Amino acid sequence: MIDPRVASGLRDLPPAVMIPRERMLAAFRRTFAAFGFVPIETPHIERMEVLSGKGAGSEEVLRQIFEVTNKGGTPGELALRFDLTVPLARFVAKHVDELGVPFKRYAIGSVFRGERPAKGRFREFMQCDFDTIGTESVLADAETAQVIHAALSAAGLTEFTITLNNRKILDGMLESLGLVGRSASVLRSLDKLAKIGRGAVREELQKATEDGGAGLSQEQAGRVLDFAETGRGGVEILREAETTLGSSAHAGQGIANLRTVLDLLSAAGIPDHRIRIDLGLARGLDYYTGIVFETTVNGWEKFGSIASGGRYDNLASLFTSRRLPGVGASIGLDRLLALMDEAGWLKTSGTRAPVLVANFPGVDPLIPFGMAARLRAAGIGAEVYPEPIQIGKQMGYGSTRGHKLAVIVGPDEAAREIFNLRNLATRQEDKGLSWPTLEDSVKSALVVIDSEGQSS
Amino acid sequence: MIDPRVASGLRDLPPAVMIPRERMLAAFRRTFAAFGFVPIETPHIERMEVLSGKGAGSEEVLRQIFEVTNKGGTPGELALRFDLTVPLARFVAKHVDELGVPFKRYAIGSVFRGERPAKGRFREFMQCDFDTIGTESVLADAETAQVIHAALSAAGLTEFTITLNNRKILDGMLESLGLVGRSASVLRSLDKLAKIGRGAVREELQKATEDGGAGLSQEQAGRVLDFAETGRGGVEILREAETTLGSSAHAGQGIANLRTVLDLLSAAGIPDHRIRIDLGLARGLDYYTGIVFETTVNGWEKFGSIASGGRYDNLASLFTSRRLPGVGASIGLDRLLALMDEAGWLKTSGTRAPVLVANFPGVDPLIPFGMAARLRAAGIGAEVYPEPIQIGKQMGYGSTRGHKLAVIVGPDEAAREIFNLRNLATRQEDKGLSWPTLEDSVKSALVVIDSEGQSS
Repeated sequence: MIDPRVASGLRDLPPAVMIPRERMLAAFRRTFAAFGFVPIETPHIERMEVLSGKGAGSEEVLRQIFEVTNKGGTPGELALRFDLTVPLARFVAKHVDELGVPFKRYAIGSVFRGERPAKGRFREFMQCDFDTIGTESVLADAETAQVIHAALSAAGLTEFTITLNNRKILDGMLESLGLVGRSASVLRSLDKLAKIGRGAVREELQKATEDGGAGLSQEQAGRVLDFAETGRGGVEILREAETTLGSSAHAGQGIANLRTVLDLLSAAGIPDHRIRIDLGLARGLDYYTGIVFETTVNGWEKFGSIASGGRYDNLASLFTSRRLPGVGASIGLDRLLALMDEAGWLKTSGTRAPVLVANFPGVDPLIPFGMAARLRAAGIGAEVYPEPIQIGKQMGYGSTRGHKLAVIVGPDEAAREIFNLRNLATRQEDKGLSWPTLEDSVKSALVVIDSEGQSS
Repeated sequence: MIDPRVASGLRDLPPAVMIPRERMLAAFRRTFAAFGFVPIETPHIERMEVLSGKGAGSEEVLRQIFEVTNKGGTPGELALRFDLTVPLARFVAKHVDELGVPFKRYAIGSVFRGERPAKGRFREFMQCDFDTIGTESVLADAETAQVIHAALSAAGLTEFTITLNNRKILDGMLESLGLVGRSASVLRSLDKLAKIGRGAVREELQKATEDGGAGLSQEQAGRVLDFAETGRGGVEILREAETTLGSSAHAGQGIANLRTVLDLLSAAGIPDHRIRIDLGLARGLDYYTGIVFETTVNGWEKFGSIASGGRYDNLASLFTSRRLPGVGASIGLDRLLALMDEAGWLKTSGTRAPVLVANFPGVDPLIPFGMAARLRAAGIGAEVYPEPIQIGKQMGYGSTRGHKLAVIVGPDEAAREIFNLRNLATRQEDKGLSWPTLEDSVKSALVVIDSEGQSS
């Protein structure tokens, strides 16, 4: 007999996880569509040349790549994608002439990384990305934050914070300290501020460049850290930055961009308290060149950012000479589900059909089968128990699965053309309802149950 | 520069394909849920041992398997799944104690086969399966056909035929000819009847078993073919079969099963003409032991079956000693989309947002940005053009993408707090509408456009 386990670092998703996940993905798809984003899909398997092109993935990611070979294929030629960004770049380079710009796409799919297995780390996980390609407009920057806001709201979150910064402001600040060439390593260290704290980041900043540090003087490191740590808040932060960095053209552009983004988000009706400026927000990737985003759920910051992204100058330089600027973000679906699960916010259930129609021993199964069909035709999900076993066991199945109501027709009820309607949670039963009232009776009972569920 | 092509046999799915595909998948998910089926997901990567277990896949499929290796992994240990049935068997064997039976699951996902690339054949394609595990009830058999019917109706199809047979009837017929041991090879040949015709099938049936044939005499082959070819129609076919095969216990069980299925489907309100009996329907797989299904779209039979399946005695014998009978089917999503595309039944569009809000040069972008937000809040998808380019170009973008309406506010309109509403197909413009009427005006215009679309 073969052991039915999954391979190391992989996992099965049972219905209790998949039902809320599908609900959330449906909310995201509706949101993306409402903003004019359209779906694309690329293969899970890409040519190795595409994935390993210079700058496509970090060295760490490339070490984790899964190679793919079939009989007759050349080893080393194919691999599983490790993100949705490299496939997007390839896709746009290939299809941009037919598609035209601006091109607004979303993509939802599995990506693969051979990471060392650890709690909460999986070798296959889902990404959920949206991007606007082919425009440098600040409207697209603001819209990216707006889509994050709408998607999380549609997923049922209320208390979350979208944090904004613009790379150009940090660049201007580094310029003012004479540190232009070192921005990549400074950003990489700053990105860890929340995780490892000021002391450790200061150490990295002051470590010599030969040793992988940024090589800053004590004073420079202190100025960088002060700037990052005091630059958090609302629009007033931008006024202060203007005073200190007003002479830098770079910083000026970044500040103006964020000002306009705040105005646009306000015009779109997004509450001020959901948006925050953080001049220290770095987002480790060298890739971003303008606005950057992170999103945390209030009180659950330990889960890290659940929606992140930013603007980039050129998406597809590996594949085409056409310059394609863009802006986008990725929603961490699995992380968000884990957070909502821990917070107790997920409505889990073993079924999405609210009604179980019993299959009573000795009653013609055409009766329950036909009743279930009537309920579905009226838009009410209904499952018929397939076997005429003892009725108590059928009710037990319904309670375990999460059905709300059971429709029961025993031999007496069948003879009199009536049915009983049982609330599976309270075990109360409404008896002797006549067959023609089936849809209306069930609908009314569900309305009562759902309204009680909301008030409790 | 790296060539942005996809690997041989793989493909990118652009928005024009993905928009109807997502619409169809949403319809299928709604349908499955309404019957009490719940989603599961298993990894794309399985252990090779699981995939190559005896009987898990045919030799042909195993030759096409994609091996997967990462740095530090053992070659030959992992592979990409080639269907969703083997992973289901593994999943159920592993989780059956927590889940309980009956267990009704659906799964939607990519599978991989290194087939020789050819037109319409891809190395990655999507499967869409649903199964009821852990019951031998005829209600589950009937429900499988009912779900196919509901899913295809929800996808917008009207003229299709679900064909039923029961393996036991064929078994009884072969028994009556003294051919019990040869049913597998007879079924494999019969399955090709529609494709290669009577002559070629007769040849296969009469070929010696040493040469891969079924080794039937000329008379036996004739009787088998006559039985298969005349056994097509409605319930009357079952009456005839009862007369000719009445003495076979096997055939009797199969006939009784189909009779009850027809009664149940009729009780569920499924029109008779959508269901057909075909006593020659074999479904090549040895795997099926009871009812079998195929579904064709009337007039488009050349596309083959778009939803097929059947009952099996034991799902997971490779992984557990617990006997798990079940019944299920698979909907050929990609094939169905290809058919609907060729038939001209797909409503394709480059966007799902009906409204484009223009970004007029010289007008404060807060105005269109805020208007689009108002439309979305009212449930109407709206895209803002990101750059204030020439208005004609923006309208061209909207027409190309498939937006239906454009909201236009030029400098004069901004000063007077009015807007113009342009029908992008007819180019007619409603002028001078006041800002507070935005949502109502757009809604009414969309109702008119959609009703015209239906009547044309």
